[in-house]
Amino acid sequence: MTARIIPIIMAGGSGTRLWPLSRDSRPKQFISLLGSGLSTFQETLRRVAGATFDRPIVVTSQDFRFVCAEQLQALGIEAEIVLEPERRDSAAAVAVGTLLARRRNEQALCVVLAADHAISNADAFVADCLRAAQAAAAGMIMTLGIRPTAPSTAYGYLSVGSQDLGHGARRLAGFVEKPDVETARRYIEAGHLWNSGNFIFSAERMLTELRSFAPEVLDGATAALDGALRDLDFLRLDADAFARVPKISIDYAVMERTGHAGVVEASFDWSDIGSWDAVHELKEKDGQGNVLEGSVSVIDTTDSLVISDEVLTTVIGLSDVIVVSTRDAVLVADKSAAPKVKELVAQLTRDGHAEATAHLRIYRPWGWYQRIDIGPRFQVKHICVKPGGLLSLQRHHHRAEHWVVVHGTAEVTIDDKVSLFHENEAAYLPIGCTHRLRNPGKIDLKIIEIQVGSYTGEDDIVRIEDVYARS
Amino acid sequence: MTARIIPIIMAGGSGTRLWPLSRDSRPKQFISLLGSGLSTFQETLRRVAGATFDRPIVVTSQDFRFVCAEQLQALGIEAEIVLEPERRDSAAAVAVGTLLARRRNEQALCVVLAADHAISNADAFVADCLRAAQAAAAGMIMTLGIRPTAPSTAYGYLSVGSQDLGHGARRLAGFVEKPDVETARRYIEAGHLWNSGNFIFSAERMLTELRSFAPEVLDGATAALDGALRDLDFLRLDADAFARVPKISIDYAVMERTGHAGVVEASFDWSDIGSWDAVHELKEKDGQGNVLEGSVSVIDTTDSLVISDEVLTTVIGLSDVIVVSTRDAVLVADKSAAPKVKELVAQLTRDGHAEATAHLRIYRPWGWYQRIDIGPRFQVKHICVKPGGLLSLQRHHHRAEHWVVVHGTAEVTIDDKVSLFHENEAAYLPIGCTHRLRNPGKIDLKIIEIQVGSYTGEDDIVRIEDVYARS
Repeated sequence: MTARIIPIIMAGGSGTRLWPLSRDSRPKQFISLLGSGLSTFQETLRRVAGATFDRPIVVTSQDFRFVCAEQLQALGIEAEIVLEPERRDSAAAVAVGTLLARRRNEQALCVVLAADHAISNADAFVADCLRAAQAAAAGMIMTLGIRPTAPSTAYGYLSVGSQDLGHGARRLAGFVEKPDVETARRYIEAGHLWNSGNFIFSAERMLTELRSFAPEVLDGATAALDGALRDLDFLRLDADAFARVPKISIDYAVMERTGHAGVVEASFDWSDIGSWDAVHELKEKDGQGNVLEGSVSVIDTTDSLVISDEVLTTVIGLSDVIVVSTRDAVLVADKSAAPKVKELVAQLTRDGHAEATAHLRIYRPWGWYQRIDIGPRFQVKHICVKPGGLLSLQRHHHRAEHWVVVHGTAEVTIDDKVSLFHENEAAYLPIGCTHRLRNPGKIDLKIIEIQVGSYTGEDDIVRIEDVYARS
Repeated sequence: MTARIIPIIMAGGSGTRLWPLSRDSRPKQFISLLGSGLSTFQETLRRVAGATFDRPIVVTSQDFRFVCAEQLQALGIEAEIVLEPERRDSAAAVAVGTLLARRRNEQALCVVLAADHAISNADAFVADCLRAAQAAAAGMIMTLGIRPTAPSTAYGYLSVGSQDLGHGARRLAGFVEKPDVETARRYIEAGHLWNSGNFIFSAERMLTELRSFAPEVLDGATAALDGALRDLDFLRLDADAFARVPKISIDYAVMERTGHAGVVEASFDWSDIGSWDAVHELKEKDGQGNVLEGSVSVIDTTDSLVISDEVLTTVIGLSDVIVVSTRDAVLVADKSAAPKVKELVAQLTRDGHAEATAHLRIYRPWGWYQRIDIGPRFQVKHICVKPGGLLSLQRHHHRAEHWVVVHGTAEVTIDDKVSLFHENEAAYLPIGCTHRLRNPGKIDLKIIEIQVGSYTGEDDIVRIEDVYARS
């Protein structure tokens, strides 16, 4: 086998179970959770960066296109980024990825990977993929099964069949749903494995199975790709076609029905980092069983996870708790209740809390901004523009703005005039003026923006021109 | 009895057990904790504002002089404010207050009140004071005893004697220390009462007992008063003399030794709000036994106190917890561990966390300021100046400042030039310039200040002139 395996990376999830660090506006696959300084998306990219693999296909939401591109760029890795106009579950994403892979190579072998899982050993992962690829080349859809360490009720289980497919691979006797604890215990006794959600298959086999078991998914994905548009470096799927693809997981659509499923038992440790208790599990603990990160101080506290990204956070006299503190939201939970964070986020959304889905720091293709103060008739923001970053040419109807440069150099356009502003210089933008901000320098530009006016909402913006195709 | 009782209000405590809302820079007696919109200091003032009482003497720390004056002014109540240069425990404060009361009236009757207690019924309090005053006029030092509602280990107990002093007052058989739970149970069976820390006595009797049992306290207090200086509206005790007063509580110094102690059983409910569990106890609870205040959302949570002053704060699956969340510090504690907050604050102080003692919002005689952002070579503050407020004439060596008015009108002096700035106008203060800010208007002045320079510490300030006597 000489052709390289094409990775299809699923990076469109919303990750609400790790709120408040993970939010819709920047979900868990794009944040650095595990202390490596890299996101799990980046760890996943690195895992498939070797010679075994071809250029990856990343399937993600259009909302994540800039963070995705930025994190790829930071690693110096190139990928084909496919943008989903909305979430349609995993069958749609696998179908799109597989269709693209086959365009690249009729005989393509693919590996589908989740962008938000933790895997202990990248070399072992590659070796397992190669073992599975042998069976995949022979027409099997291979799963990577994880030997259970506890009777988890959060995972699906794989029933390993007796037929040997060679290289340690076995035919799969069945996919089973997330069980209750008692059933999970029996599954473990029966030798079942956890379904890690990684699949290795030939494009041809997957498309054949989709045609048999989920033709609407395949037709919709094909139409969405046929109508797709190139937008900067992204491939933007046709929204109307994609909206018609049934919302169904690849497990239901194909894996539970195909007669060609196999399994390789993984030789690495794995976690889907599905909730905060999993994060506690994954991280190194101190003598009291605690994971303490950031500005944190505790007394009489054990077996707990306490993370602060800024605010001094303290715990007294508690065990098995999760405390996650950010500048605009705090979560306190019993460890056993960690999976209920998803329910909490739904409750917060219903109650109209913007913190449920939006981070305080808003990432943009040119950098980021963060509100630091707000009151009647004013708002203050910290704006960071990357070298070369260029904000849209814009105008506001209801607010004037004061910009004070606190780091770097700003090129400011106000109506027809272009001027440079350096550290400790201020620009004034009267209501209604046409203006634009650019960082012409080699270091980050940081600005404090004070908005004053009768309305300071984000939607008072008229974008006249935008290099990032947002106008 | 016609002379009015002189209240001596002890308002110098540090209140670390209610951190992070209560901190050294503005302790619990000055914050609105109980939902009335008033601080317990103000509630205490109101309790003794009727015709039964004379103008109060407030004994507090010099650090609290402006908040004290401001809170008096807000109620339209006048008081004699005595400033302690340092904390010397309650005997010193009682001695100073009593000496001042006797200056006012040789036959003065005094009531000593803690500024940080909650009392359910002000009329009942006054009635009880009047009953106690009868015995006090006859030479007794009267306590107000509280019928215990639980075998608390946080309070001292009063052993009620058999001798009737009239009007329901009884001679005190003894003061007993904070007991363990078993002892507390026996005390309650024996009919002991809680010591509320309120005392009613004649100035003459208290000074006689101090002379007998704590002459160094009396001598030190006398010397501190003799050397005291008037400073604006405050009486500032002589620091050297006051530093020599022994650090001892009035309980140890006098109450446990005097043969003239009596007790009136209080007809009001009382709490010293000694820790967060007491706050939970005092407040009205919802159907799940929770007290939820501010931006708070919970799931499966019972019998808990969750307070947020700004940041969205969430709890899942916990019972009997305290969560107090402020913009710069978060406390999570098991309710039973609430008294350990004091230990936590000591730990935070040792570890150099400024949040242990200083609030983010710093109160000044002219208003307040609050840091809203900080980074290398810059800092951003929100400044609020009350009508008529005037900051010191000052100069900085290492930073320039940009002021943007977002509310009200500013009179800005830069070197020799005085100008008015209105909403949406900005002033620039170059490094080294002499400048001053005043609010000449009728509404609050709010300014966003952006400091830029090599050093933005609070101590880079040369005060050239200050109406509040701080230069």
